Amino acid sequence: MTLEKTLARVDEDLPAATERLMQLLRIPSVSTDPAYARDCDDAADWLAADLRTMGFDASKRPTSGHPMVVAHSNGSGPHVMFYGHYDVQPVDPLELWDTPPFEPCVEDTPAGKVLRGRGTADDKGQLMTFVEACRAWIDVNGALPARISMFFEGEEESGSPSLVPFMRENAQELKADLALICDTGLFGDDTPAIVTRLRGLLGEEITITGPSLDLHSGMFGGIAMNPVRVLSKIIAGLHDSAGRVTLPGFYDGVEELPDDIARQWQGLGFDHTEFLGEVGLGIPAGEEGRSGLEMIWSRPTCEVNGISGGYQGDGFKTVLPSKASAKISFRLVGKQDPHAIRKTFRAYVESQIPADCSVTFGDHGASPASEMQTDHPAFEKARQALSDEWPKDAAYVGSGGSIPIAGYFKDILDMDAMLIGFSKDNDQIHSPNEKYDLSSFHKGIRSWVRILDSLQD
Amino acid sequence: MTLEKTLARVDEDLPAATERLMQLLRIPSVSTDPAYARDCDDAADWLAADLRTMGFDASKRPTSGHPMVVAHSNGSGPHVMFYGHYDVQPVDPLELWDTPPFEPCVEDTPAGKVLRGRGTADDKGQLMTFVEACRAWIDVNGALPARISMFFEGEEESGSPSLVPFMRENAQELKADLALICDTGLFGDDTPAIVTRLRGLLGEEITITGPSLDLHSGMFGGIAMNPVRVLSKIIAGLHDSAGRVTLPGFYDGVEELPDDIARQWQGLGFDHTEFLGEVGLGIPAGEEGRSGLEMIWSRPTCEVNGISGGYQGDGFKTVLPSKASAKISFRLVGKQDPHAIRKTFRAYVESQIPADCSVTFGDHGASPASEMQTDHPAFEKARQALSDEWPKDAAYVGSGGSIPIAGYFKDILDMDAMLIGFSKDNDQIHSPNEKYDLSSFHKGIRSWVRILDSLQD
Repeated sequence: MTLEKTLARVDEDLPAATERLMQLLRIPSVSTDPAYARDCDDAADWLAADLRTMGFDASKRPTSGHPMVVAHSNGSGPHVMFYGHYDVQPVDPLELWDTPPFEPCVEDTPAGKVLRGRGTADDKGQLMTFVEACRAWIDVNGALPARISMFFEGEEESGSPSLVPFMRENAQELKADLALICDTGLFGDDTPAIVTRLRGLLGEEITITGPSLDLHSGMFGGIAMNPVRVLSKIIAGLHDSAGRVTLPGFYDGVEELPDDIARQWQGLGFDHTEFLGEVGLGIPAGEEGRSGLEMIWSRPTCEVNGISGGYQGDGFKTVLPSKASAKISFRLVGKQDPHAIRKTFRAYVESQIPADCSVTFGDHGASPASEMQTDHPAFEKARQALSDEWPKDAAYVGSGGSIPIAGYFKDILDMDAMLIGFSKDNDQIHSPNEKYDLSSFHKGIRSWVRILDSLQD
Repeated sequence: MTLEKTLARVDEDLPAATERLMQLLRIPSVSTDPAYARDCDDAADWLAADLRTMGFDASKRPTSGHPMVVAHSNGSGPHVMFYGHYDVQPVDPLELWDTPPFEPCVEDTPAGKVLRGRGTADDKGQLMTFVEACRAWIDVNGALPARISMFFEGEEESGSPSLVPFMRENAQELKADLALICDTGLFGDDTPAIVTRLRGLLGEEITITGPSLDLHSGMFGGIAMNPVRVLSKIIAGLHDSAGRVTLPGFYDGVEELPDDIARQWQGLGFDHTEFLGEVGLGIPAGEEGRSGLEMIWSRPTCEVNGISGGYQGDGFKTVLPSKASAKISFRLVGKQDPHAIRKTFRAYVESQIPADCSVTFGDHGASPASEMQTDHPAFEKARQALSDEWPKDAAYVGSGGSIPIAGYFKDILDMDAMLIGFSKDNDQIHSPNEKYDLSSFHKGIRSWVRILDSLQD
């Protein structure tokens, strides 16, 4: 009956919870712009103060950038560490907002009520689902069902420069049994999802120099090697006709999807035609014989993120360019070794450079994929709890992108992380008119109440 | 004896001829910048006035842009039409000039005296070699050895927008037996050259659209086609491993070099290692089995003049770009048909576009190659005359670039053109510190005296 009472408390407290979120949303804590440094500080203060009202030992902790907030509850049972971020993206272009980004409001839409404003979905609204779940537990039961710590950063939208140093310096304090992260979304509109796979990322930049200066393509065209020709051949050679990456050993460490996960993903009813149709495409471009979800969640890729060389303005210039360059990234899965792949990639590129041309490489980071150990009992408990709350059963899903914090929890603190969130694809995070469905907020709080209940067994 | 006297007159008049050229060089007739429109007009006036002092019927002729200068002599014998341009390139970046660009001077250098300033080599110095040759002929002989017309434009450095309309409107007046053009160079330092081949040029721009907007490469990487991948494959497919262009029928109309020309080019002692070494390269990049001179003068090419797509700034952005584009040009030779090649190129590109991507084409012009009919007796006469003046025998050479005026004389006025000029590779035309060797100016005048003498037979 504890659970039912706590859920009822969430329902009755929703207007007050919404008003608390609005207070936090009104603080323009844009981390990338030094003009808002004071606001970032205010947001950290607001969170620490709010957590203290609930009995947490909460403090703002200085870094060389924006402060962290760390809070601990008393209590027994499993120790979970919840992570979120209180900073938000810049609001430009401001003129595309229909309402002022830092004057949040509840709006009626054909699809239901939404909270509109910067940070509603990314990540203030999401992090407050967990805070409100804790508040309801304490309100109803006088205590939390587990030992709970919270850890909020204010630099997630600006590359988290202080995060790893802070985690290393405070490893003992931050270590718990399990990390919870609320910065992801639902699958579709009503399937709750636990992200158990995150692809890694290897970023490379190559710049090929042919002639030492831009040449006239009439005088030199034919005899002088054109670096764009070299670069195009390199890029064209990275995929074979079946869509596979050709680098030797590239697929080392890539494992086939376990049958149970494969079955579950099939059950999600992912429609690649619909998914691609929303961005003007229709044909899955990945490896032959792979499903659409495999292509984005469990298979590695190679993408060109940018390419440039020669004259790019209007009209035409008969230049034979001196240089051509490309930014190329690989999304990695399983046990693929980013450092080994970097080495193989560079060796391949070098093998393609004519003897009178040269290449330089730029390193844009390397992080391996994360796969959560879903045999940790918390995963099945959380999945059941989410399935109880939502119209559809919860799913273990992948994420094609990279969420570095999950990797840091594993590498620095040796903790598994459960990534659970309630945002929707159309929340326009990082864009004008960001929103968070009121139902995401409400059912998100109820979801955490259920998950915390399930973890105490 | 007439020839010897006239050459002696050139020698004694060189200081005065240099001073006249200086006057013209001091007029900043930059055609691309409207701020210098009055100066372009002044340069045209200066030329018309100078030619009138020599007895030419010379006039400045308005166009919708900068004026033309047209001048006619009396006289009998073959009728030749001399073309040059009085406009010059802009001088930016001004700070890289060691002397003010429009305060020309004679400078002593280790390699001899040079005329320094904008327009010395391109093209005021060169056009005045012909004017001074005529002056010497008239001074010594009271008349010219042929019927001579001159035609100067003031828009060569800004795309010659008025040239073709003016030539069409005044075709009858401008028609002569042969055109002479002085806007090319020596081969090496002391081999006089007559350009008898100009490559044509076909310019294309392709823009490939994949997704309808830039995507996150984590969310979409693997399932969404990347247009840079498509573009790279297209460009990589344009050359085979032997350096040949792969478009079907591309080599239709490309003829093998006649034996006599091949022998002559061999005799030029072109050193591709030295030629490429000056621009930091060393390996001829054209078709296997072709000499360096063939690659730039008598073989067609395909070059990428510019390529762009995705994020090109500093650092990294995990974008999967919506669009990728390239500017691609073909240098054409012999009887290659630019319109047929455009069609074949576009068909090839379209065949490479995945069904859910699209391509648009931009047309950046199409002109066929020109080959002069060297069996016109004037060519051999001019070659002999040049060989008499210079340390080495004159050569028929090619030009990898395009000199549209030669084609216009052929197409609009059905005249062959002899392209003879005296500039050197190191004259820094279009660049700061442009110069023209005083020996180029002096021996250039003497060369034209000899050529005019030879033509009267």
